[in-house]
Amino acid sequence: MIRLNDKEPFSPIEYAYEVDAVLLRKESAFQEILVVENPYFGRMMVLDGIVQLTSRDEFFYHEMLTHVVMHAHPSPKTVAVVGGGDGAVLREVLKHSGIEKVFLVEIDEEIIKASKLFFPDMAASLDDPRVEIKLMDGAEFVRAPECYIDVFIVDAGDIVGFAKSLFAEEFFRSLADSLGDDGVFVTHTGSMHFHRNMVLDVQSTLKEILPVVDLYTASLATCPGNWWTFSAASKKYGLRDMRRPFQVKTRYYDDEIHKQCFITEKLYAKFMRGGLEW
Amino acid sequence: MIRLNDKEPFSPIEYAYEVDAVLLRKESAFQEILVVENPYFGRMMVLDGIVQLTSRDEFFYHEMLTHVVMHAHPSPKTVAVVGGGDGAVLREVLKHSGIEKVFLVEIDEEIIKASKLFFPDMAASLDDPRVEIKLMDGAEFVRAPECYIDVFIVDAGDIVGFAKSLFAEEFFRSLADSLGDDGVFVTHTGSMHFHRNMVLDVQSTLKEILPVVDLYTASLATCPGNWWTFSAASKKYGLRDMRRPFQVKTRYYDDEIHKQCFITEKLYAKFMRGGLEW
Repeated sequence: MIRLNDKEPFSPIEYAYEVDAVLLRKESAFQEILVVENPYFGRMMVLDGIVQLTSRDEFFYHEMLTHVVMHAHPSPKTVAVVGGGDGAVLREVLKHSGIEKVFLVEIDEEIIKASKLFFPDMAASLDDPRVEIKLMDGAEFVRAPECYIDVFIVDAGDIVGFAKSLFAEEFFRSLADSLGDDGVFVTHTGSMHFHRNMVLDVQSTLKEILPVVDLYTASLATCPGNWWTFSAASKKYGLRDMRRPFQVKTRYYDDEIHKQCFITEKLYAKFMRGGLEW
Repeated sequence: MIRLNDKEPFSPIEYAYEVDAVLLRKESAFQEILVVENPYFGRMMVLDGIVQLTSRDEFFYHEMLTHVVMHAHPSPKTVAVVGGGDGAVLREVLKHSGIEKVFLVEIDEEIIKASKLFFPDMAASLDDPRVEIKLMDGAEFVRAPECYIDVFIVDAGDIVGFAKSLFAEEFFRSLADSLGDDGVFVTHTGSMHFHRNMVLDVQSTLKEILPVVDLYTASLATCPGNWWTFSAASKKYGLRDMRRPFQVKTRYYDDEIHKQCFITEKLYAKFMRGGLEW
C-alpha cells in the first residue's frame, strides 16, 4: 500500500491495466512519464505509476474540475491553471466566452511534450494565443502573480509525490491572495472512500483562509477510491449556484450535474465533525 | 477482460487486494466462495473471483440497495430478497417498523453458512423470526410466490455468472406479477462506467413491464467501474419521493442522499436515447 499520510493509504486496491503498447516511457526531472495504449481506455498517461488520464474517460475529471467553478464566477476573464500540462483543463476553460488570459503553470515541460505527441486533441489548446505557459512551480507562481485571477484551477497530478506542496496551507494562502474580489478556486482532493483525512485537512485549511468553502464529487473509474472529491472555495460567491447560464458543450457536466454534484448538507456536516468512519 | 455480453467487458481494470489470511475457500454447487482478511477492508467475501462485500464498506451498497425502495413504499409489510444470503440486506430491511414477513430466497446455502461463520453481524438477521429462508432459485420463487410482495429486492451476487437469469425479461415479468398494488422493486445493474449496455437493457425491459422505472447510483470502491447503478421500478409510486419520513439508523443513506442519488433527468434522457459514449 502506498501511504498518503500516516493515517491512510493512497490506494488499498491495486489497479492493473492491459497494455497493448508502450508509447512512451520517460524519466523527467520530476517523475516517470508513461504513455500506454489500453484496449478499453485507449491512450493512458501514467505518472509515477498512477493513472492520470485516459482518452476514453478523461472528460469526466476535466469537465468537473473546470466547469463548476467557471460557472460559479459571474464573468471569468483571467484564469490560472496549475498543473494540467496535458492541456485538457485549458480546452475546457477556453470553451467559455469572455476569456482573455489563461496562465498554464506546469513544472514539467515533458508533460506538455508528451501530450502534444500522444494526446493532440487535448494539447491543441496549449497553442491558443490567450494561453501563456509558465514552466515553473505552482507554489512559486502564486507567491508573485502578475495580476489578479478570477478562476484558479489546480490540476495537480499527484497527491502522494512531489506535488504535495500544492496541498499545503502556505500555497492556499498565497493562492487566496492572488484571487480577484470575485475569485473562485478549485483543486481535487482525492477520494471520499480512501482519502477522507486529506479531504478534511484541505477543507479545514481552506475554511481558515477563504469565506466560502465547499466540496463536490464525481465518480471516476480510474482514480483510486473513485468517489473523487473537488474542494472549491471563493472570496464571495456560493459555489452551488451558477452565476451564468450553462453555456458550454460538454459530455457529462451540465446545469443539473452542477446542482447534484455537491455533497449533501448532512453528509458534509457529519464529515466536518470527523464523524465519518468507513 | 471478462466480458459481460458481446459489447462490454465486465471489468477492463483488474483489481488486486492484499490478503493477510484466507479464512475460507470452498467450491459450492454454484460458485467458488472465498473469504479473506485484508488489512484495509477487513473481511471480504469473494465469489468466483469477484469481490461481493467487505466488512469496512458493505454498508454503502446494502443501505443504498435497501432503503431507497423501502422509503418509496408507504407501508411495506412483506418483503422479498433474492440473493443476499449473507444477511446484510435483511439487516437493513428489518430496521423498518411494520415489517411482518421477509422471504430470503438464496440458491446457495453455503453463502449463508459462510456468513454465519465469518460475518456474524450481517448474518444475525437470518435468525429473525420474521425471516423465512427459501433455498431455491429466485427465478423459480417469482413464478409462484406465496403472497403479494410490497418491496422486492434483488441482491444478485454476480451479473456475469450463473445469476444471469435474475436479469432476464422473464424474471422481471414474473417479479412484476408478484408485486402488490403498491409494490416496488430494485436490482443492482452494474456500473455506469463499464456496463451501460446492460443498464440500458434492464431499464428498457423494465419500462415494458412496469409503469414507473428509475435509476439511481452510488460510488462503490470495490465494484468494477464503481459508479454503481440501481434499477428501481414500481407499479404506482414515483421512486424519487419518500412516502414515509426517514426513520432508520444508517451510516450513509438518508433523506438527502435519497433525493440526490437519482440520475439527473437530462443525463437519463441522453442515456435512454443511447447517446452516451464513454
